[in-house]
Amino acid sequence: MKKIVCFGEIMMRLNPLNKERFIQADNFAISYSGAEANVCASLANYFEDSSQIYFVSKVPANELGKSSIKTLRSQNINTEYVVQGGQRLGLYFLEEGSSQRPSKVIYDRKNSSFAESSVTDYNWDIIFEDCSWFHFSGITPALSENLAEICKMACKKAKEKNIKISCDLNYRKKLWTTEKANSVMSELFEFVDVCIANEEDVQNVFGLQGSYEELAQKIIQKFSCKLVAFTLRESFSADKNIWSSLLFSKTESFKSEKYEIQIVDRVGAGDSFSGALIYALLNDYSNQNSLEFATAASCLKHSIHGDFNQVTVDEVLSLMNGNANGRIQR
Amino acid sequence: MKKIVCFGEIMMRLNPLNKERFIQADNFAISYSGAEANVCASLANYFEDSSQIYFVSKVPANELGKSSIKTLRSQNINTEYVVQGGQRLGLYFLEEGSSQRPSKVIYDRKNSSFAESSVTDYNWDIIFEDCSWFHFSGITPALSENLAEICKMACKKAKEKNIKISCDLNYRKKLWTTEKANSVMSELFEFVDVCIANEEDVQNVFGLQGSYEELAQKIIQKFSCKLVAFTLRESFSADKNIWSSLLFSKTESFKSEKYEIQIVDRVGAGDSFSGALIYALLNDYSNQNSLEFATAASCLKHSIHGDFNQVTVDEVLSLMNGNANGRIQR
Amino acid sequence: MKKIVCFGEIMMRLNPLNKERFIQADNFAISYSGAEANVCASLANYFEDSSQIYFVSKVPANELGKSSIKTLRSQNINTEYVVQGGQRLGLYFLEEGSSQRPSKVIYDRKNSSFAESSVTDYNWDIIFEDCSWFHFSGITPALSENLAEICKMACKKAKEKNIKISCDLNYRKKLWTTEKANSVMSELFEFVDVCIANEEDVQNVFGLQGSYEELAQKIIQKFSCKLVAFTLRESFSADKNIWSSLLFSKTESFKSEKYEIQIVDRVGAGDSFSGALIYALLNDYSNQNSLEFATAASCLKHSIHGDFNQVTVDEVLSLMNGNANGRIQR
Amino acid sequence: MKKIVCFGEIMMRLNPLNKERFIQADNFAISYSGAEANVCASLANYFEDSSQIYFVSKVPANELGKSSIKTLRSQNINTEYVVQGGQRLGLYFLEEGSSQRPSKVIYDRKNSSFAESSVTDYNWDIIFEDCSWFHFSGITPALSENLAEICKMACKKAKEKNIKISCDLNYRKKLWTTEKANSVMSELFEFVDVCIANEEDVQNVFGLQGSYEELAQKIIQKFSCKLVAFTLRESFSADKNIWSSLLFSKTESFKSEKYEIQIVDRVGAGDSFSGALIYALLNDYSNQNSLEFATAASCLKHSIHGDFNQVTVDEVLSLMNGNANGRIQR
Amino acid sequence: MKKIVCFGEIMMRLNPLNKERFIQADNFAISYSGAEANVCASLANYFEDSSQIYFVSKVPANELGKSSIKTLRSQNINTEYVVQGGQRLGLYFLEEGSSQRPSKVIYDRKNSSFAESSVTDYNWDIIFEDCSWFHFSGITPALSENLAEICKMACKKAKEKNIKISCDLNYRKKLWTTEKANSVMSELFEFVDVCIANEEDVQNVFGLQGSYEELAQKIIQKFSCKLVAFTLRESFSADKNIWSSLLFSKTESFKSEKYEIQIVDRVGAGDSFSGALIYALLNDYSNQNSLEFATAASCLKHSIHGDFNQVTVDEVLSLMNGNANGRIQR
Amino acid sequence: MKKIVCFGEIMMRLNPLNKERFIQADNFAISYSGAEANVCASLANYFEDSSQIYFVSKVPANELGKSSIKTLRSQNINTEYVVQGGQRLGLYFLEEGSSQRPSKVIYDRKNSSFAESSVTDYNWDIIFEDCSWFHFSGITPALSENLAEICKMACKKAKEKNIKISCDLNYRKKLWTTEKANSVMSELFEFVDVCIANEEDVQNVFGLQGSYEELAQKIIQKFSCKLVAFTLRESFSADKNIWSSLLFSKTESFKSEKYEIQIVDRVGAGDSFSGALIYALLNDYSNQNSLEFATAASCLKHSIHGDFNQVTVDEVLSLMNGNANGRIQR
Repeated sequence: MKKIVCFGEIMMRLNPLNKERFIQADNFAISYSGAEANVCASLANYFEDSSQIYFVSKVPANELGKSSIKTLRSQNINTEYVVQGGQRLGLYFLEEGSSQRPSKVIYDRKNSSFAESSVTDYNWDIIFEDCSWFHFSGITPALSENLAEICKMACKKAKEKNIKISCDLNYRKKLWTTEKANSVMSELFEFVDVCIANEEDVQNVFGLQGSYEELAQKIIQKFSCKLVAFTLRESFSADKNIWSSLLFSKTESFKSEKYEIQIVDRVGAGDSFSGALIYALLNDYSNQNSLEFATAASCLKHSIHGDFNQVTVDEVLSLMNGNANGRIQR
Repeated sequence: MKKIVCFGEIMMRLNPLNKERFIQADNFAISYSGAEANVCASLANYFEDSSQIYFVSKVPANELGKSSIKTLRSQNINTEYVVQGGQRLGLYFLEEGSSQRPSKVIYDRKNSSFAESSVTDYNWDIIFEDCSWFHFSGITPALSENLAEICKMACKKAKEKNIKISCDLNYRKKLWTTEKANSVMSELFEFVDVCIANEEDVQNVFGLQGSYEELAQKIIQKFSCKLVAFTLRESFSADKNIWSSLLFSKTESFKSEKYEIQIVDRVGAGDSFSGALIYALLNDYSNQNSLEFATAASCLKHSIHGDFNQVTVDEVLSLMNGNANGRIQR
Repeated sequence: MKKIVCFGEIMMRLNPLNKERFIQADNFAISYSGAEANVCASLANYFEDSSQIYFVSKVPANELGKSSIKTLRSQNINTEYVVQGGQRLGLYFLEEGSSQRPSKVIYDRKNSSFAESSVTDYNWDIIFEDCSWFHFSGITPALSENLAEICKMACKKAKEKNIKISCDLNYRKKLWTTEKANSVMSELFEFVDVCIANEEDVQNVFGLQGSYEELAQKIIQKFSCKLVAFTLRESFSADKNIWSSLLFSKTESFKSEKYEIQIVDRVGAGDSFSGALIYALLNDYSNQNSLEFATAASCLKHSIHGDFNQVTVDEVLSLMNGNANGRIQR
Repeated sequence: MKKIVCFGEIMMRLNPLNKERFIQADNFAISYSGAEANVCASLANYFEDSSQIYFVSKVPANELGKSSIKTLRSQNINTEYVVQGGQRLGLYFLEEGSSQRPSKVIYDRKNSSFAESSVTDYNWDIIFEDCSWFHFSGITPALSENLAEICKMACKKAKEKNIKISCDLNYRKKLWTTEKANSVMSELFEFVDVCIANEEDVQNVFGLQGSYEELAQKIIQKFSCKLVAFTLRESFSADKNIWSSLLFSKTESFKSEKYEIQIVDRVGAGDSFSGALIYALLNDYSNQNSLEFATAASCLKHSIHGDFNQVTVDEVLSLMNGNANGRIQR
Repeated sequence: MKKIVCFGEIMMRLNPLNKERFIQADNFAISYSGAEANVCASLANYFEDSSQIYFVSKVPANELGKSSIKTLRSQNINTEYVVQGGQRLGLYFLEEGSSQRPSKVIYDRKNSSFAESSVTDYNWDIIFEDCSWFHFSGITPALSENLAEICKMACKKAKEKNIKISCDLNYRKKLWTTEKANSVMSELFEFVDVCIANEEDVQNVFGLQGSYEELAQKIIQKFSCKLVAFTLRESFSADKNIWSSLLFSKTESFKSEKYEIQIVDRVGAGDSFSGALIYALLNDYSNQNSLEFATAASCLKHSIHGDFNQVTVDEVLSLMNGNANGRIQR
Repeated sequence: MKKIVCFGEIMMRLNPLNKERFIQADNFAISYSGAEANVCASLANYFEDSSQIYFVSKVPANELGKSSIKTLRSQNINTEYVVQGGQRLGLYFLEEGSSQRPSKVIYDRKNSSFAESSVTDYNWDIIFEDCSWFHFSGITPALSENLAEICKMACKKAKEKNIKISCDLNYRKKLWTTEKANSVMSELFEFVDVCIANEEDVQNVFGLQGSYEELAQKIIQKFSCKLVAFTLRESFSADKNIWSSLLFSKTESFKSEKYEIQIVDRVGAGDSFSGALIYALLNDYSNQNSLEFATAASCLKHSIHGDFNQVTVDEVLSLMNGNANGRIQR
């Protein structure tokens, strides 16, 4: 099997237990996450031989950095290209909402080892040797000038080597302005084959407007994109959402099953969609089946604590084939 | 800012974790609560300068009493007038229900330091110096003859000093009979400006019947009340309720938004309504807006563990302005 | 009061906390359960004098076996006839599902002390002295040839002594084939008075098909059954089910109330139905009331952690009488 | 086997986890205990047929009372004579010390169902039918005038029926004065065969002074006592104690092994001594062996959470025979 | 009572539970601490009227900052002068050691709101109005140039107003070099009345060497110090230490009791010594008694989880008077 | 780096929390362990490039088996040769002792996937390609005839390929008789280079007696052993042990430092000794230093929860160099 490479930050996630508020918390549950790490965890779950699923990042050479690596390894991710160094591990604090009370995130990721990565930390020639897919999200280039530059270098090198590139727009207003995002992402999108986004992302990053179909076609035309996927979330409350998705190629459009979801933990759902979509495309599922696989996988993510989706291909296929009633499997 | 004063008992609340039944419990979660303390906690949350939010009570001079004071202080409540002495801290045990299984409360508050308060424990002249609002509920005078007397003294003194008085009827059949309640509360209501209640309360305490409108007008006419507010709970199950409220003045009637709620912890919801209503009235919100603020605040309370509502004015206003879908705030 | 005897295995149940997946678990909650033990726990809950509710089984003479006995005793079950010996306690691991993700069970019960019971472990003459009811399920004879033989001996002896016999079909495909089940259960059903089942069970064990009414009548005619009860579960998700039941005698049919349930823990619900049905029949409830009592009791089971139903007769009657809205009981 | 009867209060014990202070606690671990209940739990542990080990008491007819009964049953204690009624369950709060910081106890047992027992709650004729031993401690008569009276009635009845009586002095200064204790206990000691105490107890209750030997002989002479046992605790810190004991008959004196103990939970150690001593005497151990058995058993209690000693006869004998090095038993 | 003011950082402390290693942790216990905040918490514990105990600091205006304030308030500390603003709350991660395995601390406090304080954040004229004591430690000026400057301004202003100043040297090699420390601290020590330190601190900060007596006298002569206190820790293992202290004035020297301690949590012990020493000096204890009070208080700190010492004056006096055996207080 | 291969069972370990007894446990902490897996975890901790540290075993293809693999991976162990199949994962239940109460182990490992391994499950030609060291313990061949045969095949193959072989005798009386052990192990020891044992092991397995020196020399002479190491444990209580070790070659003898240990978790200490010894020998430490490294590493293991030793080379060297006082590392 050829390598699959995800590039991004891994942070420590700290969240109060049992839907307590920050102000009530005496303990935080600790896990590790990050948009691209979450995608990587999904991929490592699905491929039988996961020795070729690589996460590329930088973490501090202390126990917190090592704990993040330990977690990646436990997910069966190859951590050979995770550089150790720099000042600190990025953190994010998550307060889980309930009913009308929304979830809240406090980021504390400035000056992280990853954000302060230098160009020489990553040798893309070696990383991309014998590689078939490269994934990153809009968060990575937003973290620093250096990372924007590194992303561009990686994309160029990947294109040279004929590696497929996917990118989740993942616009974060606390990290950069829409102008800056537009300028950086437009350059990077020259290389992107598969775009994953939600409606707001497209508007924020590329200033585009219109129906989903129109947004997708504009991206396809403007850049070299082959496929554009949208995840659609209808929020009734912090506990109950409806989840579905759309996929567009230049000539076709696909619409997934809709799932009404009782939420356990919705963080990372979009990333689990990306991971499952990449898996399906790499396994030559049809476009429709790829979309259904990605949607079912990310539906299941909502029932799982932590940012990583911990489901098997069989479990996703079972839901995709209609077994949605949650009956006990003895 | 002028003082706001709440007068009542603070109890230790002991509840099994994770919706276990009493009979299954190996641990109890400990928190502190009481109808008026809950109102006070809401008020201290909302006012920027909370140094003037006073809780008046009596707790034993042991570690349990001191823990209750510590909790009040952590909520930013001024505890200068909490007397230490007497025999024991009142307790209540709460078993949280689920689906068709109702929640259960076992009170163990007899002979508490507060219930056995004497008239000399509270110097209302000092307490009411430079004060604008006094709140108590029907539970306080129900606890002992002494407390009924003390409530009367406090109400008289407050009236003399032109302090607004609010009272939540809060009828508890285990504490007194409807006859006794009628006799005591009728006397106290001569002083009350704002009455908070539910339909059963009014019938139990004052023997009144009719539509909400009729009940409110009867109270307004019979006593000196300016405003009567009703909280309305439709229970579908221990997990799912619909919550709304009504407000009546002599000439007008107001009806709030309705919220369908997935319940985390519903104890103290009525008190959070009272606290928010007082805040809104003191801040010169319109009657309609006061009602909406109080309803939104108490809607959010259902999503929060413990009797105290732990939300900010901004969070309440956000829900009041329609952001009820629980989307993550990054 | 005369003895009531349940015969089956008691296993240790190990389940990850807070709906974690197996792969995420660092702790398992420990409880004890088994189809017939669950029925027995219900019976011991309901009868005021539970000294005559006997569980008959075999557990190893080590601390795990003793812990299972301790738990039975805490439920007020008479454990005088629980034999100590053999190799190991049967185990089952339970992963609780959520939303579209189903619950999963991993059994590890092979070579358990109970499965390897010998005929001489149980002296039915003594056990059935002064006894009125005998209950077992299709799991017990499925565990070993010996147990199939022991069940036959027990049924014969019970019939001689005019003891009522109930059996829950409880077909488990991992324990035996449909052919084997048919051959063994057909012999045993010569003695059974009350049959409890679901649609699939009847088809799997007896190869019967048709409407519930037809299935019931076929069983009644083929064997000596007086009553056949079916529990009906409509699964919308792992969190939300609709629950009801049917009861058939030779000449009449009864249909219960339907309950929409928010699930806390659904394992053991069928057993809690059986336990409540036996209680009701032994207390001469009408057939309709027996069915309603059993359905309400098992509705409440879904709100309770662990396999044992921990509710009182009063709580069941209250729900049966329509108090399903989960309001707090102060 | 003949009945063994212990008479006393059973309370709920609430203690912060992990040696937290009261003021730090968010959770309390719940267990059930009481001087005589602890003795009873030891006895039920040791006797193979524990159906004749009775605890006699009164608890409220609510879920807390029922939980205390459930716990007694799980310990294999016969609860047939535990009356249900009255107002409340007695409580005690325990803060566990460490190093130089002592453990603290806050009692909240006033007005408990047991303290307010009436003479008619206990039918000693029935209770003492076919009984060989009766145990109580100085706490029981200290709780109320009624209980002092009931103890006297029980002792008289026991003596008539030739039942052996043991009493642990257990002086509690918060329950009564030394004068009152002297007057009541002197009357009761007319009936006592085996006295268990520590030095302070004897001085506080009977105003006696002198060496252990002298104290014992004075008690033996003054009353009808056959045996007087003293437990000796040398406290170096809240974590480290040395534990041993003495036994005196009219003509002989015995001294036990000394144990240096690393403490897990020392509450109930004295009670575990009494329980083991009674077991040994009833099984005709020599006086020396009885003392060693009781000392070893109570040494082990210090390593066990909760007031109940949870050890087997084999474990006690093993320690008594010198296996004190704590090596793993595989 | 006059104000007492402590100036420093408050951080979130995150530590794995149950002595787990960082690499094993799934949960972190959350508390709040900081050298000067710990001193402040001790002072607020001891003074009956703690309304004049002020902590001066800066925390971010998010939920983490507010949680730190809530904790300070719960300790009864006046937080009126805690500024809200800046980027982030400082963090520190603590792995608790055991036996030969040492505890480990990972600091993540760079760029904290406090470290980036500006001169205008603190109005010392107002803060020091009616104030009697000012405390800070060597950590505060080490955090940034600004803070070194602010400390100097505060010290000058305090001196003008005749306020006593205490300073704990608290040298932290990760925050600054010995050269930088020497230059900054020498300037600040022109104002310090009471110096608290350990041997290494004095050497690191002032480059002094010699016996404790010699070190103290050199500080006294070089600066305006009236008193120099040293805490002495003999470490046998991570669990067992011996703890004592020395105090020197220009003319006298004092030596405290020695305590052999079984450690629960030793972080903050030095700060608890400072807090208790200041309390004793302000209450006109003799120098010997002040030292004994501070040593006993900080001995007890070792038995308490978290950085804050949670003991009363009575508890400290009791230990100081020799009650060190940890017997239960009923 | 060349491969290092450990061959043995990996089990799930289930232990009550907080030193509770089995009979008290409501939760079990879950970890994974096994004598050879523990050795492997130590090796993977120490080597910078751990991609060549292989654990060879067989686990069931269910979630429990996969969880054991996940844990091995998180420890950075290469699991490529862990076969999935068979019936069940072996289990062991551990009750942690305290003071005079010993720890207890209940094994439930019969019929495990590993015990029922077949010869064809392991291709030693591939496994031993480019390998330098092979480790197993006496437990592996004791589990089944097949495994004894497989061990012999592996040893032969290893010898052919000039791979060093180490074996920990690890006699378990519940798995086989001394006769059987003698016969099997004597054959296997023809191939063993490094023998690790305790005094009892040598006597039980080879029937040898005498001083440690004599035992070692007899083994060296009888078999081809180059080195024989003994771990020495002096047990004072379940909490306090003294730990040291001896090493013998044909011509020399070495004695390690002695450590007095306060125990957190002593299970796996012997295995951590073996792992560290192999590391030291492979890194050409002198015999004395190898022994000191192994002893210091296994000393630290006693302070760490779980069977795996989680320490770094630097931490071991630090202790080996005398830093045993457990001071905080800031």
